[in-house]
Amino acid sequence: MKETRPIILVTNDDGITAPGIRCLSECMAAIGDVYVVAPDSPQSGMGHAVTVNTTLAYEQLHQNPYAKAEYSVNGTPADCVKLAIQHLLPSRPTICVSGINHGSNSSVNILYSGTMSAAMESAVESIPAIGFSLENFSWEADFSPSKPHILSITKRFLKEAQPYQVLNVNIPKTNTIKGIKVCRQSRGNWHEDFVERKDPRGKSYFWLTGEFVADDPHPEDTDVYALKQGYITVVPCTFDMTDYQLLNKIKNTYDTEI
Amino acid sequence: MKETRPIILVTNDDGITAPGIRCLSECMAAIGDVYVVAPDSPQSGMGHAVTVNTTLAYEQLHQNPYAKAEYSVNGTPADCVKLAIQHLLPSRPTICVSGINHGSNSSVNILYSGTMSAAMESAVESIPAIGFSLENFSWEADFSPSKPHILSITKRFLKEAQPYQVLNVNIPKTNTIKGIKVCRQSRGNWHEDFVERKDPRGKSYFWLTGEFVADDPHPEDTDVYALKQGYITVVPCTFDMTDYQLLNKIKNTYDTEI
Repeated sequence: MKETRPIILVTNDDGITAPGIRCLSECMAAIGDVYVVAPDSPQSGMGHAVTVNTTLAYEQLHQNPYAKAEYSVNGTPADCVKLAIQHLLPSRPTICVSGINHGSNSSVNILYSGTMSAAMESAVESIPAIGFSLENFSWEADFSPSKPHILSITKRFLKEAQPYQVLNVNIPKTNTIKGIKVCRQSRGNWHEDFVERKDPRGKSYFWLTGEFVADDPHPEDTDVYALKQGYITVVPCTFDMTDYQLLNKIKNTYDTEI
Repeated sequence: MKETRPIILVTNDDGITAPGIRCLSECMAAIGDVYVVAPDSPQSGMGHAVTVNTTLAYEQLHQNPYAKAEYSVNGTPADCVKLAIQHLLPSRPTICVSGINHGSNSSVNILYSGTMSAAMESAVESIPAIGFSLENFSWEADFSPSKPHILSITKRFLKEAQPYQVLNVNIPKTNTIKGIKVCRQSRGNWHEDFVERKDPRGKSYFWLTGEFVADDPHPEDTDVYALKQGYITVVPCTFDMTDYQLLNKIKNTYDTEI
C-alpha cells in the first residue's frame, strides 16, 4: 500500500532565487511534494509584516526542479504563507518549512526574522512549521553539510508534529557539527549604532548598524551558547506571547471593577 | 524636594499625525517629560520590521504641544524606538508607551502590530513598555473616555516596572467600560480571503481581506473574551518565544551527539 506523501510548503525571506531555498527544496523533495511560495525579492528584517495597504500579485515560475509548483510573490514572507494556504496550494500543507536563511536567527533575532515569521504565520494557521537558518551570511555559503541534519529533524518533527508547533533551527558555520541540542531562546540585543551620512543637499541620513550581544545571565541552556559550541540548535517556539509569570504577579493589583 | 520626572518615549504605528498619539502624549505629559518619535506615515501591519537595507532619516517637528521634543522618522515603529533610544533622546527613557492604536491588538494581532512591536523593541532594549490600542479603527474615534484608565495603568506600571516587561492594553469601544482585567492572549486567527482584481493589462492582483476569528478552547481568561464583556484588557507579554512545555517534551528525542 502506498503511503500518502506529505504536502510541504517551502518559503523563505531571502527571496525565491536564494541558494538557501533551493537547498531546502531539494531536502524536502526526498520526503514529500514540495510547493515553493516565496518573496520575489529579499525581505530580511521584515519581521511579521503583512501587506494590508497595497496589493499582492504572484507569478508562477519553473526554475526549481524540486518543486511540484513554484510561485513568486511581491510581498512579505507572512504574505506568502497566507497566499499559499488560502489560494495557491492544491490542499492544506502538512507542514511549512522556511529558509534556509542566510544568517543565524538565534536569540531575539526571531523577532526581526522574516524566515521565522513565515513559520509562525503557518503555526497561527494551525500548520506546524520549522524555520532553518545557517550561521553564514554569504550568498556562496555551503549548505550541503546541513542537508542530512535538516532531513533528520524534519522527519522526526513530521512524526509527532501538532498544529501550532514551531521549531527555530539554527545551524553553526563550522564543518564539524557536534550534534543537535534542544535549547531555549537566549536573551540578547543589538548594540546599535546609527552611522550618519549627508545627502548631496547636506541633509543627514542614517544607516542602522550594530553588533549582537547575548547577555543571558544563565546561558548554558540557550541557543547562542550551543551554537558557539558547534551544535545545531532547536528552539521550540510559541506565538502565545503572554508572560504568565508576570500575569500571576499583577493580576490582583490591576483587576478592577467599575 | 522635587521628584525627578520620568522620561517617557511616545511612539505609534499609525504615524505621527494620528489623533491617537496626540491623546497618548497628552496623558503622558501629566506624568513625565514626553518625547515623541514616530513614523512619518502609517505603518500598520509592519510587525517587527526594521530598516536594514535602506537608510533612515528624521525631521524635528513642533506640532505636538505635549512634547518636549518631537521627531518624525521615515521608518518602522521598531526603527523609531531604536533611533530614539540610541540617538534622539537626551537620556534613556524610563518607559516607552506606544499608541493609542486605531484598532484592537488583542489575540495574535500582537504579531502583526507595529504598535506592539515598538513596545517589544523597547523591552528588548531593557526599557519597560506599554502598547495601548482602542477597539475602533475610525480616525475620528473618541479617545477621551480612555484617558483616566491610560493614566492609572501607566502610573501603576511605573511604580514596579522591570526591564523586559511589556503590557498589551486594549480598550473596548463601549462608553460604559466595566473595569480592567489582566488576561492571557487569546488563540485566534484571520480567516483570510484574497479578493482578486485585474489590472488594466489583464494581470491579476489581490487584496488581502479577512475576518478575525477567536477560537480559543477555554476563552474565559482571554483578552478577546474580556474585551467583548466591556473590560479594558491588560496582557503581560514577553519576547521570549520559547515553548517551554514542548522543549521539555522533545529534549530527549532530539538531543544528539555526533
